Amino acid sequence: MAKKTPLVGITASKSGDFSEWYTQVVLKAELADYAPVKGLVVLRPDGYSIWESLRTTFSREFARRGVRDAFLPTLIPESLLSREKEHFAGFNPEVYWVTHSGNNELGDRLALRPTSETLAYEMYSQWIKSWRDLPLKINFWNTALRAEIKATKPFLRTSEFLWQEGHTVHATSKEAEDETHAALDSYRHVIEEELAIPVVAGKKSEAEKFVGAVYTLALESVMPDGKALQMGTSHFLGQNFSTAFGIKYSDRDNVERAAWQTSWGVSWRLIGAMIMTHGDDRGLVLPPRVAPLQVVIVPIYYNDADEGRVMAQVSGIQDTLSSSGIRVHVDSRQELTPGFKFNDWEMRGIPVRVEVGPKDVDSGAAVIVARIDGEKTRIAFSDIASISGMLEEIQSKMLARARESQKDLTRTAASYAELASMVEEGGFISAPWCGAGECEEKIKKDTGAEIRVIPFEGDVPSECIVCGKACSHAAPLFARGY
Amino acid sequence: MAKKTPLVGITASKSGDFSEWYTQVVLKAELADYAPVKGLVVLRPDGYSIWESLRTTFSREFARRGVRDAFLPTLIPESLLSREKEHFAGFNPEVYWVTHSGNNELGDRLALRPTSETLAYEMYSQWIKSWRDLPLKINFWNTALRAEIKATKPFLRTSEFLWQEGHTVHATSKEAEDETHAALDSYRHVIEEELAIPVVAGKKSEAEKFVGAVYTLALESVMPDGKALQMGTSHFLGQNFSTAFGIKYSDRDNVERAAWQTSWGVSWRLIGAMIMTHGDDRGLVLPPRVAPLQVVIVPIYYNDADEGRVMAQVSGIQDTLSSSGIRVHVDSRQELTPGFKFNDWEMRGIPVRVEVGPKDVDSGAAVIVARIDGEKTRIAFSDIASISGMLEEIQSKMLARARESQKDLTRTAASYAELASMVEEGGFISAPWCGAGECEEKIKKDTGAEIRVIPFEGDVPSECIVCGKACSHAAPLFARGY
Repeated sequence: MAKKTPLVGITASKSGDFSEWYTQVVLKAELADYAPVKGLVVLRPDGYSIWESLRTTFSREFARRGVRDAFLPTLIPESLLSREKEHFAGFNPEVYWVTHSGNNELGDRLALRPTSETLAYEMYSQWIKSWRDLPLKINFWNTALRAEIKATKPFLRTSEFLWQEGHTVHATSKEAEDETHAALDSYRHVIEEELAIPVVAGKKSEAEKFVGAVYTLALESVMPDGKALQMGTSHFLGQNFSTAFGIKYSDRDNVERAAWQTSWGVSWRLIGAMIMTHGDDRGLVLPPRVAPLQVVIVPIYYNDADEGRVMAQVSGIQDTLSSSGIRVHVDSRQELTPGFKFNDWEMRGIPVRVEVGPKDVDSGAAVIVARIDGEKTRIAFSDIASISGMLEEIQSKMLARARESQKDLTRTAASYAELASMVEEGGFISAPWCGAGECEEKIKKDTGAEIRVIPFEGDVPSECIVCGKACSHAAPLFARGY
Repeated sequence: MAKKTPLVGITASKSGDFSEWYTQVVLKAELADYAPVKGLVVLRPDGYSIWESLRTTFSREFARRGVRDAFLPTLIPESLLSREKEHFAGFNPEVYWVTHSGNNELGDRLALRPTSETLAYEMYSQWIKSWRDLPLKINFWNTALRAEIKATKPFLRTSEFLWQEGHTVHATSKEAEDETHAALDSYRHVIEEELAIPVVAGKKSEAEKFVGAVYTLALESVMPDGKALQMGTSHFLGQNFSTAFGIKYSDRDNVERAAWQTSWGVSWRLIGAMIMTHGDDRGLVLPPRVAPLQVVIVPIYYNDADEGRVMAQVSGIQDTLSSSGIRVHVDSRQELTPGFKFNDWEMRGIPVRVEVGPKDVDSGAAVIVARIDGEKTRIAFSDIASISGMLEEIQSKMLARARESQKDLTRTAASYAELASMVEEGGFISAPWCGAGECEEKIKKDTGAEIRVIPFEGDVPSECIVCGKACSHAAPLFARGY
């Protein structure tokens, strides 16, 4: 049997060249690839499987809140977009414009949706007539298209990205605000439980909020390179859009009222966060809950006599794990050495590897290797279903480890000078802020750091780190971000 | 309690004005609505739920064949499209062109994908190096965009439609041909079992095949108005694309070979077929397996004393059905009469209605009404879980009834004159054909009917109905189509 020379795995180190490491992991673990158009990427089956897993879990969470899925087309007429000029202005430089169909020039240019507020709300204004039609809670799983001029970074910076956008309409301000918070809670739950990434929940500053919103809630996380990443946002829109789009309902007292709205979204950038948070120099490390494969079994034998008894054992293990609901795969490729296979599956981040050779068959136990720390254990064949519990443990360990790392990357600045030097070093910097736009702007100008989030939790400090004035909320987290 | 005057339901009859009836059902049952751009529609939650149900079932079928899902971007550069000019020529008049991003004119225009062959195969040519990479079987759930100039018809004729496109690559011709047939089998299974629509499976003629294919397999169905509808296609592409796109693999003997390919797709037009096949003058009739709600419970009471005991019973029924895995809803809207609710849920096609009033509570049984035929039965509360079996029966009945209807709409022409008059009356017309393009074209020119499908099954007739020459395959089904 001709053995193939192992391909080179990840050649950049995570601590040495984070950006190059990230790109190699994405490409070599075959999560995504570059499309022929600059800025666009293709999601390969393993990447898509992770997205589908998230989609399923999010949809279940949304459904619990009474949200239903629907579909909106990709094209939005320019005339409709201009209905809410302020909201749309921010997207203008990024909009792809369709000007022709076939050889015919279009009268009204069509935008590829950078986000669907205008289209959704135009429909909502027709669907909502009475208080009986409220609340209306719809979510759209689609893509957004925003031409990116900076270097493409799969999952983090692409001109088209997979996401979901939820858009709800309510009779009262209170109900809409509750929904805004509930959406953030759903996100937090799924991101922490499924992706094992800890997040800080809070509010955006006026300067950083979504321009169409009354206020924006956000989840923020800090990546191992010290840069912050926005994980999800939930906007309380007040009556800003309902007034512009005429989303009015006739109330129980027959008076016509403008409705209250929310919108909220997460994107495939969560996959980018997962790669950065958990990966190591060998490649991807997948949280078991979202891993396309949770266990890979590598049979080891060097002659035909051993092949028979090893494969019989392997097939028994596969059946046991499979019927315990574990996503398991047997790597029976003949032309590759066990060592090559180990490296290959490690690079792809599969949580648990099971090795079965002739000696293991003799001793009645398999070698089990956890991807997270490379720890080897032996588990008796009769006890092999305990891998199920091991996967849950790995999932918890990953969240705990990421929490530890986020804690290490979060520091408190005692003075303005310290804030500046800490920003330079990276991570979340907690610093008291009075709430004034000028102080926020000065920090951004001096250090390049912006307010990522004003945490819901935390003591209210006494003096702003810039101007010394009183503060009315917890100290924000400052950082440079993605 | 103020009772609302019932809204008017479907005002067109299915036999009287089929087209108007169809549009009213789509809009009033709230499956879809028109978007602000001509040709585009929005899928509302009930419509989307049906599509999601199909998507889930199809994906499971595809997975059984080893197909995995992935994602391709919406934009395809013009330069790439021109790689396979012949295939692309047919789409030219329908392509939406992006010429600008923001205020910048693009160098290479970008097409909104009318279909993804070119993009997928450009990627495949990079991913496939060796026989080890084959077979490659990927499916994409996305939309296709083709500017429609004719009147918009939700699910049947829109400028953007939800669909899936499967694209597989194989080492041998035989394997690719087997896959082409297996894809058609998956479609047939899901369409008949889930949507209760019978289909005729077979081959397209040379004139009607997909231009890039060696041959096209298809499922065809005939709608109650006598027009044929293509339900799904599966193309054996041979090496047509692999040659143009350089999809080559180095074989076990180290010789480089062009791969063999298939592509196959179904779209939301299946929802259109479902509406047309099963609906009636009261509105939609949903097959239980894909219905967003399978059972609606309408409580009936006219005073507070009755309300308590009726609602207690209703809630027990809801729990029982829910825990049997039935999708059930209680219509407890206070401001609507029971009669209004009956009509409303009938229009929306919910398969089973359960009525519970004070007398029913006294007698220990509920009134059950099947949407399919309006048949009323009484089921004891203790036996209410038997509705589960009833739903299965309804599903079978719907397929049987549709089969009967398709049989009635399929006739055999004995002469050319009869063929012409039968086409005029509508339906599938079976007529012997020698296989020559001229005979096919003459029929099309004289009658407006095209060959919808050459069935896999059926005797080989002796003489072509046009020229009298010998036939080498079963008699095709001719019809005018959607």
